[in-house]
Amino acid sequence: MILRPRPTAWQLLYILRGTVLLLVLPKVLGISLLSCLAVLSIRMDWLHLPSSTAVPMSLLGLALSIFLGFRNNASYDRWWEARKHWGALIIELRSLARDAVALLDDGADPGTPVRGHHDARRLVHRGIAFAHALAGYLRGYDEGDNLARYLAPDELARVRASINPPDALLREMAQEFATLRRTGRLTDITWQTLNERVGGLSAVLAACERIRFTPLPFAYTVLLHRTAYLFCLLLPFGLAELLGWMAPVLAAALAYTFFGLDALGDELENPFAHVPNGLPLRALARTAERGLLEALGEPLPEPLLPQSYLLM
Amino acid sequence: MILRPRPTAWQLLYILRGTVLLLVLPKVLGISLLSCLAVLSIRMDWLHLPSSTAVPMSLLGLALSIFLGFRNNASYDRWWEARKHWGALIIELRSLARDAVALLDDGADPGTPVRGHHDARRLVHRGIAFAHALAGYLRGYDEGDNLARYLAPDELARVRASINPPDALLREMAQEFATLRRTGRLTDITWQTLNERVGGLSAVLAACERIRFTPLPFAYTVLLHRTAYLFCLLLPFGLAELLGWMAPVLAAALAYTFFGLDALGDELENPFAHVPNGLPLRALARTAERGLLEALGEPLPEPLLPQSYLLM
Amino acid sequence: MILRPRPTAWQLLYILRGTVLLLVLPKVLGISLLSCLAVLSIRMDWLHLPSSTAVPMSLLGLALSIFLGFRNNASYDRWWEARKHWGALIIELRSLARDAVALLDDGADPGTPVRGHHDARRLVHRGIAFAHALAGYLRGYDEGDNLARYLAPDELARVRASINPPDALLREMAQEFATLRRTGRLTDITWQTLNERVGGLSAVLAACERIRFTPLPFAYTVLLHRTAYLFCLLLPFGLAELLGWMAPVLAAALAYTFFGLDALGDELENPFAHVPNGLPLRALARTAERGLLEALGEPLPEPLLPQSYLLM
Amino acid sequence: MILRPRPTAWQLLYILRGTVLLLVLPKVLGISLLSCLAVLSIRMDWLHLPSSTAVPMSLLGLALSIFLGFRNNASYDRWWEARKHWGALIIELRSLARDAVALLDDGADPGTPVRGHHDARRLVHRGIAFAHALAGYLRGYDEGDNLARYLAPDELARVRASINPPDALLREMAQEFATLRRTGRLTDITWQTLNERVGGLSAVLAACERIRFTPLPFAYTVLLHRTAYLFCLLLPFGLAELLGWMAPVLAAALAYTFFGLDALGDELENPFAHVPNGLPLRALARTAERGLLEALGEPLPEPLLPQSYLLM
Amino acid sequence: MILRPRPTAWQLLYILRGTVLLLVLPKVLGISLLSCLAVLSIRMDWLHLPSSTAVPMSLLGLALSIFLGFRNNASYDRWWEARKHWGALIIELRSLARDAVALLDDGADPGTPVRGHHDARRLVHRGIAFAHALAGYLRGYDEGDNLARYLAPDELARVRASINPPDALLREMAQEFATLRRTGRLTDITWQTLNERVGGLSAVLAACERIRFTPLPFAYTVLLHRTAYLFCLLLPFGLAELLGWMAPVLAAALAYTFFGLDALGDELENPFAHVPNGLPLRALARTAERGLLEALGEPLPEPLLPQSYLLM
Repeated sequence: MILRPRPTAWQLLYILRGTVLLLVLPKVLGISLLSCLAVLSIRMDWLHLPSSTAVPMSLLGLALSIFLGFRNNASYDRWWEARKHWGALIIELRSLARDAVALLDDGADPGTPVRGHHDARRLVHRGIAFAHALAGYLRGYDEGDNLARYLAPDELARVRASINPPDALLREMAQEFATLRRTGRLTDITWQTLNERVGGLSAVLAACERIRFTPLPFAYTVLLHRTAYLFCLLLPFGLAELLGWMAPVLAAALAYTFFGLDALGDELENPFAHVPNGLPLRALARTAERGLLEALGEPLPEPLLPQSYLLM
Repeated sequence: MILRPRPTAWQLLYILRGTVLLLVLPKVLGISLLSCLAVLSIRMDWLHLPSSTAVPMSLLGLALSIFLGFRNNASYDRWWEARKHWGALIIELRSLARDAVALLDDGADPGTPVRGHHDARRLVHRGIAFAHALAGYLRGYDEGDNLARYLAPDELARVRASINPPDALLREMAQEFATLRRTGRLTDITWQTLNERVGGLSAVLAACERIRFTPLPFAYTVLLHRTAYLFCLLLPFGLAELLGWMAPVLAAALAYTFFGLDALGDELENPFAHVPNGLPLRALARTAERGLLEALGEPLPEPLLPQSYLLM
Repeated sequence: MILRPRPTAWQLLYILRGTVLLLVLPKVLGISLLSCLAVLSIRMDWLHLPSSTAVPMSLLGLALSIFLGFRNNASYDRWWEARKHWGALIIELRSLARDAVALLDDGADPGTPVRGHHDARRLVHRGIAFAHALAGYLRGYDEGDNLARYLAPDELARVRASINPPDALLREMAQEFATLRRTGRLTDITWQTLNERVGGLSAVLAACERIRFTPLPFAYTVLLHRTAYLFCLLLPFGLAELLGWMAPVLAAALAYTFFGLDALGDELENPFAHVPNGLPLRALARTAERGLLEALGEPLPEPLLPQSYLLM
Repeated sequence: MILRPRPTAWQLLYILRGTVLLLVLPKVLGISLLSCLAVLSIRMDWLHLPSSTAVPMSLLGLALSIFLGFRNNASYDRWWEARKHWGALIIELRSLARDAVALLDDGADPGTPVRGHHDARRLVHRGIAFAHALAGYLRGYDEGDNLARYLAPDELARVRASINPPDALLREMAQEFATLRRTGRLTDITWQTLNERVGGLSAVLAACERIRFTPLPFAYTVLLHRTAYLFCLLLPFGLAELLGWMAPVLAAALAYTFFGLDALGDELENPFAHVPNGLPLRALARTAERGLLEALGEPLPEPLLPQSYLLM
Repeated sequence: MILRPRPTAWQLLYILRGTVLLLVLPKVLGISLLSCLAVLSIRMDWLHLPSSTAVPMSLLGLALSIFLGFRNNASYDRWWEARKHWGALIIELRSLARDAVALLDDGADPGTPVRGHHDARRLVHRGIAFAHALAGYLRGYDEGDNLARYLAPDELARVRASINPPDALLREMAQEFATLRRTGRLTDITWQTLNERVGGLSAVLAACERIRFTPLPFAYTVLLHRTAYLFCLLLPFGLAELLGWMAPVLAAALAYTFFGLDALGDELENPFAHVPNGLPLRALARTAERGLLEALGEPLPEPLLPQSYLLM
């Protein structure tokens, strides 16, 4: 995620990082060059074009704008929905930690005041591990180091052997809550309260999997790509006769807008990708980690800060 | 569902699988041919057309774009909502398995440590059967083999005799939970927790039925089809005088865009159909199956992988 | 609801049932005729019209398209929301039946194994009656026959005397659940579970009442109707000079699209009306009925099937 | 709220009540007059205008249509959301009444069969008072009479002294439920069930306060008003040269559409205002009142009916 | 937030406060000046421009309108969603206060009638502190004074030392509820009820953090800014030849609309910023404070009122 102050008009000229400019520049230049050729061909009388293509071209362009608008809306909705699920992750983890500490770590356990603290600590650490495991799972990274810091070796081994490490962690949580209930450390109601947090994390996991592994329908994407190419390739021939040497300028402006929107939709479609406009999963996992460690009263790692405006 | 890397500009030229190109090609060629005829007729002086039809045509085209945009949005929403319900299915099944194993299979059942394991196993297997039964029910397939692997023969018979096999499975689940509660194996609260999962699966089932059996209003679809045909059939006559021999090119581009969007809307409208852009119900059911078997510690079947980019 | 295969291009020419064609045909013909008159008047020199009305006309038409688009979206949302509530009805009824049978009809009631079955049966029958009563209430029909089949005579009398029969049925349900709880047949938690179903049905009822009795704001509808008429009546004069004898064709195409969208919005606005594009309340109630009777193991009535593609 | 049959084409000409026609007529006439002046000035050679303003004007008009479309959507969403909250109010009140009667008024209270009835009655009456108090609070009316009919004098005094009467009523409810629980008349679970209704009413209250006291962002409204004025004031000069004496007609049609949409957005923005297109809060409160009194078996007041199509 | 009556046509001319006029005026004047230069250059024959740029310009402008429309919709949704979360805050706090007072402050605590009142008071005061702490956290202010009034000194110290003061307050709440439950003052169910309020506040906090710290994707914003600049800078050259000295007027009107929408989107994107169109967090926190103090029967501070129409 790019975090920087609103760029000034001047900066808009040259900012590249996190924008789609570099991605679309070759295409824009190509269209502009094609326009020059078209104008030249007309001036040289190599080519005869009807002068009134502007209206049908603008009809095609308009249809394209409307469809690109809807599709970008859909891509942005995926991006924002993904962020909401990571927000829900933070809600669930904080609630888990808050309730686990309040219910178990009360210094009131008869005879063994330390046991409660240990139990709460293990539960909260497992929650932190879940956040890291989810980030790694969605990005295809191995978050082994972060897991090793918070899990016991045998649990770590079980989790890493799973086909779905975050889901394996949820099963470990549920097992532990069931054991605490069976041994009378949790009543039915307090067990239910804590177990609902596991259900909430499970919902976050499945929602993120849905966004990660189900792209927009292929036919939709291809149809829009094809229409965008069709439009931009016809553009030089539509504008050359009308505009003369202003055609390359306007064709470039239009190609930039349409290819830019198209590229942007591609980038937002997968919000978990490790790209500049992707969601900063590591920073979010670190935020959760710090909050949970504070709840335990343990020392906090540094927050992750943007590096040259980029937060990953 | 088509799963393949973003196609390059070059691939866009020839990719057919999973796109609507083949569906709309005959219509596009027809419109293009009609344009040629119209241009020819004008050149041959067989036909006299006003030269200023472009503006009213573009008004009709614009109205059509806007309405197609809204309708495609509605179709895509159905598709994505369907995917969300299958995500919810996975959430509910995993939670069911997690809680059933944690609550029942604890090796702590006095005297009969094995009984708990058997109970949990039967409950989880029934959950897997539900996923397969739902996929079969929505696609009109018989998933008998997959059911037989996870259900006892008498239960299988009851389920297959039902007018709604997934719903019959839910009743079996509810019966078993009620029995476990009555025999004291579940308390009221743990019964409530597990029974809520059955409620969640019931919600998924009814939502999928809604999407499957309630198409978009017929009048809506027909109105758009008719307007699209009207527009595309008038197009050659609107463009011929203006554009001359460029008319067939632009008419084809416009017809491709509009018929393409229209066909795409049709394809996304029923996300459970067994078509390239449909949801990969079998692969999703397999994903659920693998997760649930892992929760039981049983051997996993292979995941379903895309066959030449196509996942069913 | 119209249920038929996607019409072919050929069928689009003549399908009438369930489309809005008949509704808008008189208006379309009127506009077309007016166009002929306008062209004739110009040719006869009776009328002098500026030739450049196309641009302002297209501005008015575009504004109209956008607003019609938004309004049709709102109408469709009402229609789809209504269908969702009927989906929720089916979820709640099935869950009610599933839980009532599982919790009460267990053959384990000490001494009176039959009582449990009778209680469950009465509860489930009342649920079926609710579905029929709701359909009748929303459509203004008397569903007395369907109610009489499932309710005891005194209850039937109370329900029919009520100002809101479905709501009266919910009160009967709540009374019975409270009695079962008081007599110890339900514990607090199982009572809560069943009573939540009554709450869910109450939510469905109130949501359907909202959609049924609160139309879109009158001023919104009137403004759009007026703009549509204004536009279509000005159209002949805007196109006559430009297009000559092609004006009636294009005016008819435009009038068909705009009046058609307008009429479609009217039809979808009240999804419970007994019209071809309305929701098939009776068929949905029958679906619920069949599922609930199967849960009781009782004989099923036939499902309602579309009659010449029309399902009511 | 205006409730009347769909107006015929003929009625559209003269219906005023509940439409925004009267509001925008002066502006429309002004624009039309300005157009006449512009045409006259051109004919008289007092003014020279470029003839090709139509395209830039239509660009401005289109941008305006799109933004008005989005804003009207936002206003309508507020209106419909407000209606949904009043629907939720009815759900919560009916459920409160249903459960209060079923749980308390059972004639089974040992020794004092009457006490249960009195308790249920007081609870239900307080619910009715809540509906009236909310309507009064949102409209700035004093609903003292309606409150006095359903509240004891001391409670009425406390409620009317509060800064937020509906909220004060909710506190009274919560107090009474807590007392019933403390005295053993409600168990923890039945208390929880009834208390959740109070939470639901609290959610309705806060949501209505949000819609009532937070208008759309002022800058948004002003920008659209200014653009609408700009557009409509430039219109006569843009159309005069092109259209001659047809300019006043088209300018009026466009001004009617744009000012009308703008005025409509204003009217829907505050759905609780006491205007023709506002929500019929009194009628809704009366509907709730009648349903609750029926649940108690008490005599019902008449429903509020539309007066010359207008329901308040 | 600006709260003032709908401005009259006259006031629209000069109102500045809370509108984006001042922000965009320099740009609008710049574009207008550039137009004058372009017209002058043409008149002086310094520059030759094609006269038919209007159609491609309007295509670019239309694409821009559509994308700006979608983006403003997204910004407005963030703004309204933020307001909804503050509405949820008020719901949760009122419910917390209502239930805490009803359950604890009953004068029925055997022997120590005062203790219940003190407990309820401390819980409610902590709720008020949460509202102030959240406002301060989201706006980057120190709300120390408001916290000190409602928190004990040691708690205040802990909260202010936290990396996330509102979250620290939630942990204090959870601790206190757990203690009340452990000492038997709350049963499992009443504990659950009150603890769910803490969960609700946690959800509000995380949702506000999401909106506050995750801007719209940078690439989206930059693409729109660049397209808006491109369009407005090309505008003078597109209009000069066509419109002559009317070009500066129309260019200014268009630049005002597009730059205005763009600036408005920026302003609504961060609804917690301390700007005129931001949400009035302090006033909302004060509203919550007054309601909660009334629930305790304590004296109320004055409500915050708009200062020259501006409520912060």
